[in-house]
Amino acid sequence: MVHDSLAQELFQELCAIPLIDPHSHIDPRQPTARNLDDILGYHYYTELAHSAGMSQAPLAPTVDPRERVRTILSFMDRFDNTAQYSWFLEIARTFLGFQGERLGPSDADWLWEQAERLMTQPDWETQVLQRSGIEKVFLTNDFDDPLEGFDPTRYLPCLRTDDLVFHLDRPDVRQRLLRATGIDASSAAALRQVITRLFERFVARGARACAISLPPDFTPVPIADADLDRALIDVVRSNTATSSSASPAVKARVACGIFWMLAEHCRTFQLPFDLMIGVHRKVYRGGVFQGQDLFDQRTSLIQYGELFNTFPEVLFPLSVLTSSQNQELASFAWIFPNVLTNGHWWYSNIPVYLERDTRARLQAVPKTKQIGYYSDMYKLEFGLPKFNMYRRILARILADDFIRPGIYTHAQALDLARLLLRDNVRTHFKV
Amino acid sequence: MVHDSLAQELFQELCAIPLIDPHSHIDPRQPTARNLDDILGYHYYTELAHSAGMSQAPLAPTVDPRERVRTILSFMDRFDNTAQYSWFLEIARTFLGFQGERLGPSDADWLWEQAERLMTQPDWETQVLQRSGIEKVFLTNDFDDPLEGFDPTRYLPCLRTDDLVFHLDRPDVRQRLLRATGIDASSAAALRQVITRLFERFVARGARACAISLPPDFTPVPIADADLDRALIDVVRSNTATSSSASPAVKARVACGIFWMLAEHCRTFQLPFDLMIGVHRKVYRGGVFQGQDLFDQRTSLIQYGELFNTFPEVLFPLSVLTSSQNQELASFAWIFPNVLTNGHWWYSNIPVYLERDTRARLQAVPKTKQIGYYSDMYKLEFGLPKFNMYRRILARILADDFIRPGIYTHAQALDLARLLLRDNVRTHFKV
Amino acid sequence: MVHDSLAQELFQELCAIPLIDPHSHIDPRQPTARNLDDILGYHYYTELAHSAGMSQAPLAPTVDPRERVRTILSFMDRFDNTAQYSWFLEIARTFLGFQGERLGPSDADWLWEQAERLMTQPDWETQVLQRSGIEKVFLTNDFDDPLEGFDPTRYLPCLRTDDLVFHLDRPDVRQRLLRATGIDASSAAALRQVITRLFERFVARGARACAISLPPDFTPVPIADADLDRALIDVVRSNTATSSSASPAVKARVACGIFWMLAEHCRTFQLPFDLMIGVHRKVYRGGVFQGQDLFDQRTSLIQYGELFNTFPEVLFPLSVLTSSQNQELASFAWIFPNVLTNGHWWYSNIPVYLERDTRARLQAVPKTKQIGYYSDMYKLEFGLPKFNMYRRILARILADDFIRPGIYTHAQALDLARLLLRDNVRTHFKV
Repeated sequence: MVHDSLAQELFQELCAIPLIDPHSHIDPRQPTARNLDDILGYHYYTELAHSAGMSQAPLAPTVDPRERVRTILSFMDRFDNTAQYSWFLEIARTFLGFQGERLGPSDADWLWEQAERLMTQPDWETQVLQRSGIEKVFLTNDFDDPLEGFDPTRYLPCLRTDDLVFHLDRPDVRQRLLRATGIDASSAAALRQVITRLFERFVARGARACAISLPPDFTPVPIADADLDRALIDVVRSNTATSSSASPAVKARVACGIFWMLAEHCRTFQLPFDLMIGVHRKVYRGGVFQGQDLFDQRTSLIQYGELFNTFPEVLFPLSVLTSSQNQELASFAWIFPNVLTNGHWWYSNIPVYLERDTRARLQAVPKTKQIGYYSDMYKLEFGLPKFNMYRRILARILADDFIRPGIYTHAQALDLARLLLRDNVRTHFKV
Repeated sequence: MVHDSLAQELFQELCAIPLIDPHSHIDPRQPTARNLDDILGYHYYTELAHSAGMSQAPLAPTVDPRERVRTILSFMDRFDNTAQYSWFLEIARTFLGFQGERLGPSDADWLWEQAERLMTQPDWETQVLQRSGIEKVFLTNDFDDPLEGFDPTRYLPCLRTDDLVFHLDRPDVRQRLLRATGIDASSAAALRQVITRLFERFVARGARACAISLPPDFTPVPIADADLDRALIDVVRSNTATSSSASPAVKARVACGIFWMLAEHCRTFQLPFDLMIGVHRKVYRGGVFQGQDLFDQRTSLIQYGELFNTFPEVLFPLSVLTSSQNQELASFAWIFPNVLTNGHWWYSNIPVYLERDTRARLQAVPKTKQIGYYSDMYKLEFGLPKFNMYRRILARILADDFIRPGIYTHAQALDLARLLLRDNVRTHFKV
Repeated sequence: MVHDSLAQELFQELCAIPLIDPHSHIDPRQPTARNLDDILGYHYYTELAHSAGMSQAPLAPTVDPRERVRTILSFMDRFDNTAQYSWFLEIARTFLGFQGERLGPSDADWLWEQAERLMTQPDWETQVLQRSGIEKVFLTNDFDDPLEGFDPTRYLPCLRTDDLVFHLDRPDVRQRLLRATGIDASSAAALRQVITRLFERFVARGARACAISLPPDFTPVPIADADLDRALIDVVRSNTATSSSASPAVKARVACGIFWMLAEHCRTFQLPFDLMIGVHRKVYRGGVFQGQDLFDQRTSLIQYGELFNTFPEVLFPLSVLTSSQNQELASFAWIFPNVLTNGHWWYSNIPVYLERDTRARLQAVPKTKQIGYYSDMYKLEFGLPKFNMYRRILARILADDFIRPGIYTHAQALDLARLLLRDNVRTHFKV
């Protein structure tokens, strides 16, 4: 990119729009990093270092955290070409005062001490949010999360339902569910009661969405209660401790049955249902924590046609994993009133795909139906570099595709950006 | 795109090449819009307005058309970011004298009256064609279209065969076929006669192609007459009124059998067979008219390998729905002499995919085998903005990929454009 | 691309990095073209000329080669828009002294004579390598290749295993195998011995990799010896001369069994296992020699998950055929330590995909795990234009994505290029 002063100016203006981040994994009781280990413990760094040759030994809990970050930094020159490295460099510069060009093991001590000094300030959380331009952050909460001990005007709960849909065969999950609701989810009717209780509790605590990640071969269909009853019995019976011997077909029936109930509850409780489509879990079995999941490009949104038709009152903000499925997403959101485009997920969250996918959505989907970006972050410090990556790309697109060809004025382009970064989140998630 | 005077100059030169539009849905007896309702009734506007929140009530035939366009215009600020909105803006500026920057409900009355005044001029059709640079337009004709009442040097018929291949199980289709040919298509032999009669009639009236749209899971194979006979009996027997209870396998056999006969007739009658690959019909069941169809990215041109091998004498101009399948298309057209690339269809007809797909074809497929673009329009007014979208992108590609790197001179680049926009249509469709 | 002096300067610097070409089809006993027929006999020209309308008659061995090149040149103005034409133009200019703008049949005689004169010089091979900046070239050797008669410091053998895995049902292949190893591969145990002998011989002669191309539906799994024994018996029994009537399931079992043994031997002998994923052979049955193969985009690297998990000690440099699968490749190489990205294969080796795929890899995969490019050439003269195509694109990416945004200094960008073009090949293939 040759220097583009219009795009640069737009970027500065986008940074002034107060963000509402519609998906994160922030722990609101400990939202910021406490030290450099919390930053470099993000799976993007551990998995890239491991992929580039680092063993898993430095990641053991017994290893001195300061030693661990030195080791990860020593592998960084093997992946300093990546977008993920750029995020870290931007954190080091913006939040830790780093002024060099490259980061390596020789910076480990200095960075560690800067982080220790700065991150322990009592107002660190507020500083980070202010510098990042973030006003509110959506959370990802297990069904048995207490939903207490945080500022509910800043952090907004979302009910994450992967465990319910895909792991009800595990006794530990059923135990947690029993404890959380007082009901044994052993029949379709009981399960419906369980889910109603969970929704009641979450909505009472200000939940903004129900959310789930889904494998590429998942095709939701309704399951009759009698069929679900039988499948639940099979699943419970086939279990001993934490594993299950229920057949894939039976597990799929349970998953579909519960998924469909969730959609029904989203309708009743008027909650959007965030679908994150396409991930296979534990593909690389020897991978680091959270660095094992991959995908299969052979998946289609057509699998969700019946769902979108059956629940016209439910909003479905969709995330996809591949740039080729993004064309499906742009097309489905262009046709179905209840389908929204939602952020740029995981393996698609690198500039080359981010740019192309954003342009396709802006050319084909009503602007009121696009949730521009979410951070997916575990620690607040990552909001700034991730949103900046998006804001830089969006600024360039606004300049090249809208302002220069005369489609939008400068002010109209900023209005569009405000929808993507803030107002559509407010409207659709009722913030 | 920073201003590029070479690309701008090329665009002007491309606009001077008289177009032959090789695929449209023009009604040659009423080729232009009669009023603004005919323009905004295009499914791109009704479906985007509906997707952005408009109910279907304003689309009822009982609604005053002037009220309808006001309503659609009032939703337009929700999708004024899209390529489709840009087409309308270009129509309003070029054909209706609109001089503002944005279009909204306050423009409804003025636009309506301008349209009434201008579109009722007796030479409106000629004006539109001249300003658009369009010389001839291919039609899409049902098998029982009378093919009369229009200028056959300007409008060239094409036999559309979706009904024949996919809906012969419907009594109404068989009735229409009986009326059109005098033959009851109840056996393979009778069906072959029927198709011969249709081809004879269409060719006598100057038909330029046989055309069909196909679902993503369609895989043509030859069907023995005896098998087709049995399948036809099943299909007829299982029918009552307009619905059919024939099994999907039986319907697929009928579809393959008829499709294969069409290919045989294309060989006999030396007509190209336009295949538009990948659409699922009625995915969004509650959608507006023509705004219900979507696709499944999991489809491959390998499904057509047997067809391309069996009919080396038949030309197959292919359209695909996704940019990832465009790589297949570029590769198949690079290898198979009888496969041509044909335009940019529907969900791929937005700038980001149009640019990428055009560049891939220009880098990999012999230039004599590429049909650059078609309008797919229902009213002539859409030819200008749609072809302009393509011409602007093509001009930029010619500048960046051919002239500036020294691969082509300016004159050679224009020769290439003339092939894509005009001469390849003339050669391959024998215009 | 508007002129970019930084990219131009980088291109010159990249050309100074001595290449190691990690995949070619060079015959080291006759590595260069002997005449123009050897150049235009490359399948890219014969298949494009055929696709554009040339019959196969001029390709018959009885045709005068000089007449053949004149014919191919006479079809060239139908595909002078393609990347492949640009390669030929660059060869004509760089190696044959051509100074014109266009190449056509009127140049046939002059080019023929220039080629005759220049290519018969005794030091032609060295001249070509020097002008191309190529130091070493990997070969593709059949299992019964004598591996003799060439400079082993310049040409490095690789064991190509398509015949072993997919054609052991053919008596001629089993005969060749018997002659090469003295063992009749009629049981799993015997087959294991056969493969061990082959690896021993290849490694003793300096082999650098085991390599194979694979169809899109191949999913490797281990096969128990007893099952493989039975399948081998079926396969042998069902054979007569050069064809086989064994069922696809039995053939697939044999293929998986042998493939898995190859992976085991790669582990034992510490050889990388090059997988070239996605090609269907003989799709266009009437195509020219080597111009018959195509692909099916519906394939996934997830099919190789079990393989990558089972053999963490084996390096798998992967090539894919489509740009959409490239996103899978970038993601799998980002997660699996033993997966490398390897070049840009065949139908993806055109600029539009080359640029996008390279950018995605550079943004997501550790730079130490990327093999930038290979030539896939049959004659050394093609190394220069093919690597130049890549070097030009890489130069532009380094300028736009790394140097201008301040991520890398100019020197660091060149270090990255050196990894991609040379050092990663040296490290991973132990050159």
